[in-house]
Amino acid sequence: MGWNKVAIVGAGLIKFGELFNKSAEVMIEEAYLDCIQNVDKGISPKEIQAAWLGACRPALHGFHTIGGVTLTGSIGLAGIPCTHVENGCPTGSDTFRNACLGVASGLYDVVLALGYEKMRDNTTAGLLGLAAQGHPVLQRGETAMTQFAPQATRHMYEYGTTKEQMAMVAVKNRHNGFLDPYSHYQQEITVQEVLDSPMVCYPLNLFDCCPQTDGAAAVILARSDIAHRYTDKPVYVAGVAMATDVPYMHEKESFTEFVATVRAAKTAYSMAGIGPQDLDAVECHDCFSITEILNYEDLGLCEKGQGGKLAESGETRIGGRIPVNPSGGLLTKGHPLGATGIAQMIELYWQLREEVPKQNAKRQVAIKKGYALQHNVGGRGISNSVVTILTRNP
Amino acid sequence: MGWNKVAIVGAGLIKFGELFNKSAEVMIEEAYLDCIQNVDKGISPKEIQAAWLGACRPALHGFHTIGGVTLTGSIGLAGIPCTHVENGCPTGSDTFRNACLGVASGLYDVVLALGYEKMRDNTTAGLLGLAAQGHPVLQRGETAMTQFAPQATRHMYEYGTTKEQMAMVAVKNRHNGFLDPYSHYQQEITVQEVLDSPMVCYPLNLFDCCPQTDGAAAVILARSDIAHRYTDKPVYVAGVAMATDVPYMHEKESFTEFVATVRAAKTAYSMAGIGPQDLDAVECHDCFSITEILNYEDLGLCEKGQGGKLAESGETRIGGRIPVNPSGGLLTKGHPLGATGIAQMIELYWQLREEVPKQNAKRQVAIKKGYALQHNVGGRGISNSVVTILTRNP
Repeated sequence: MGWNKVAIVGAGLIKFGELFNKSAEVMIEEAYLDCIQNVDKGISPKEIQAAWLGACRPALHGFHTIGGVTLTGSIGLAGIPCTHVENGCPTGSDTFRNACLGVASGLYDVVLALGYEKMRDNTTAGLLGLAAQGHPVLQRGETAMTQFAPQATRHMYEYGTTKEQMAMVAVKNRHNGFLDPYSHYQQEITVQEVLDSPMVCYPLNLFDCCPQTDGAAAVILARSDIAHRYTDKPVYVAGVAMATDVPYMHEKESFTEFVATVRAAKTAYSMAGIGPQDLDAVECHDCFSITEILNYEDLGLCEKGQGGKLAESGETRIGGRIPVNPSGGLLTKGHPLGATGIAQMIELYWQLREEVPKQNAKRQVAIKKGYALQHNVGGRGISNSVVTILTRNP
Repeated sequence: MGWNKVAIVGAGLIKFGELFNKSAEVMIEEAYLDCIQNVDKGISPKEIQAAWLGACRPALHGFHTIGGVTLTGSIGLAGIPCTHVENGCPTGSDTFRNACLGVASGLYDVVLALGYEKMRDNTTAGLLGLAAQGHPVLQRGETAMTQFAPQATRHMYEYGTTKEQMAMVAVKNRHNGFLDPYSHYQQEITVQEVLDSPMVCYPLNLFDCCPQTDGAAAVILARSDIAHRYTDKPVYVAGVAMATDVPYMHEKESFTEFVATVRAAKTAYSMAGIGPQDLDAVECHDCFSITEILNYEDLGLCEKGQGGKLAESGETRIGGRIPVNPSGGLLTKGHPLGATGIAQMIELYWQLREEVPKQNAKRQVAIKKGYALQHNVGGRGISNSVVTILTRNP
């Protein structure tokens, strides 16, 4: 039996993409409205007692300190408490985690967790700002790319992982995203096209990298014992865990595993009372193709060093032994930091409820044991990970 | 009987001031070390299972997205989960609130809540950045001053509150801060000096305004039923509540009350099972002298419109009926946003444990009923408030 104190009872999402025509407030409002309109038995906004807002890049861009009222003020819920969470790439999943803690605390019965990100406005100004301010590490070119590429070269060196295997991850996730109406990219690609795409930072070509994507995603969480007021098919939080690691690359002992993921996964599996063999699907942090290969190992989907071979085997495709990133993942659906983790939860909520066929039957994974795993990793030095295990089993 | 699920069992603080010589990491480390060294029966860092980090201005300044690892990485606790909370002026108190939810959830027995702020570096760049990016409201001069000054003029108009009464708040808090070794300002002032200080934004003179202050503050929270492992004198969280209001000034119905404070206070008093008459001390959000006067009314310390007269009566001095801001408050101790709320908790922790005499006997308030109230209000449109009620009563 898992933790199961909290359940997802509603989910709403906007189509991810380059949303220059939508303000943060509009994206928030659309995700929220989609969410409350999709609660099976209906919900009144008055039933929402507290909220958590995930957003990361307003910080990075110096746009303004946003606060929780950016959420409550945008959706007509001024009054209820709302915390703004920022935590790098896992911002969305940590927002979800704090909302879970709020419900489990006994103080709130029904809460909203919503994440958004405007990635396509002001990016250059934000990154130039970092350099201009002279941060001792960030000023010297520590971008996402330069943190993940060395993991790839080291994994190639130690375990014989190939660029073709990495490309197969991108091809799989582009295929899945092609089946997902919410995905940023909507085109299939081939291994050769990945290998032929422009080199960004060796060994990562353009199609090994996730796009810059705007998006928003929202879920309603309720105490498990009242979840049936809102739906006959709640999805329970069987385990939720975060862990950290040392925050700079030069401090790390290994470049072929993310210690934060290993730690968070261990705790989440323990809370849920299951192991990797019990999972029907995984949504993991494929910001780059190599990241998904490392995640396979860190999450226990295969032995250490076998991630490239698992990608090549086809077992992580929809229909395979353990489908990974059926939504298309960050590589295809996109990675709006505050929204990403919550959107991953939503994909697994749909999958576990077996309602993906309403969108596209080819994207539905087979639900056998009724468990699915969500994962993010990131932050300065790739030092921060959240792993959440969802289940439809009461 | 209050909520009392969570207790403060340790507290640490650095002297507030202009700390150009200390990095964020150093401030964090010093507050953390002071905190764990001041746990009465001792604590091992290994006993801390999770952490929450409060910081607001890294967001405002576009310095970099900081993430929870800024805390765990700075104090040698890489491994444990850490959430970064940002929520405007109540950032510190909302960080504390989320840490309380974490303990009350049953997932963590012992956690760290730490807040810091570097207010004195990059301020101009940050504010210019806001204007340059063309925010529809912020670009037009919506600073803290221009949001609070109209509350003062309206309160003067409606209730006859005087500039002398506002000055008396500043004089009282300067006196209290003069007794507080952690306070930024360490000088007494007179009413005439406040009135003669440079006009900043009518009717607020320079000494009606809190300084720009760097600081850091940390507390250890534990499940109440295990608090006695760490101290024989835990201070319990009897109630903790946040509330929001509409996020822009032009939407507000009244300029003489902060609706978010009224809502949060109502919930917190209800959780604690007490009323304003049961408080031995209050630490409230006196970012400007007028703010404390409005807080008196919003928190129920006096009738609506009587805040100016309460300030004049002397009853909010140490030794009076209800001492307010014995630490010196934001006006004197300073207002490093991420740290402020947690530092207020620490002052009340010391007061309720009657250990202020170790610093200065004149600052100790009389503890009668054993309850004290902490309060912040702020954020865009002064729309966000946290009220926490602490008690030494099990």
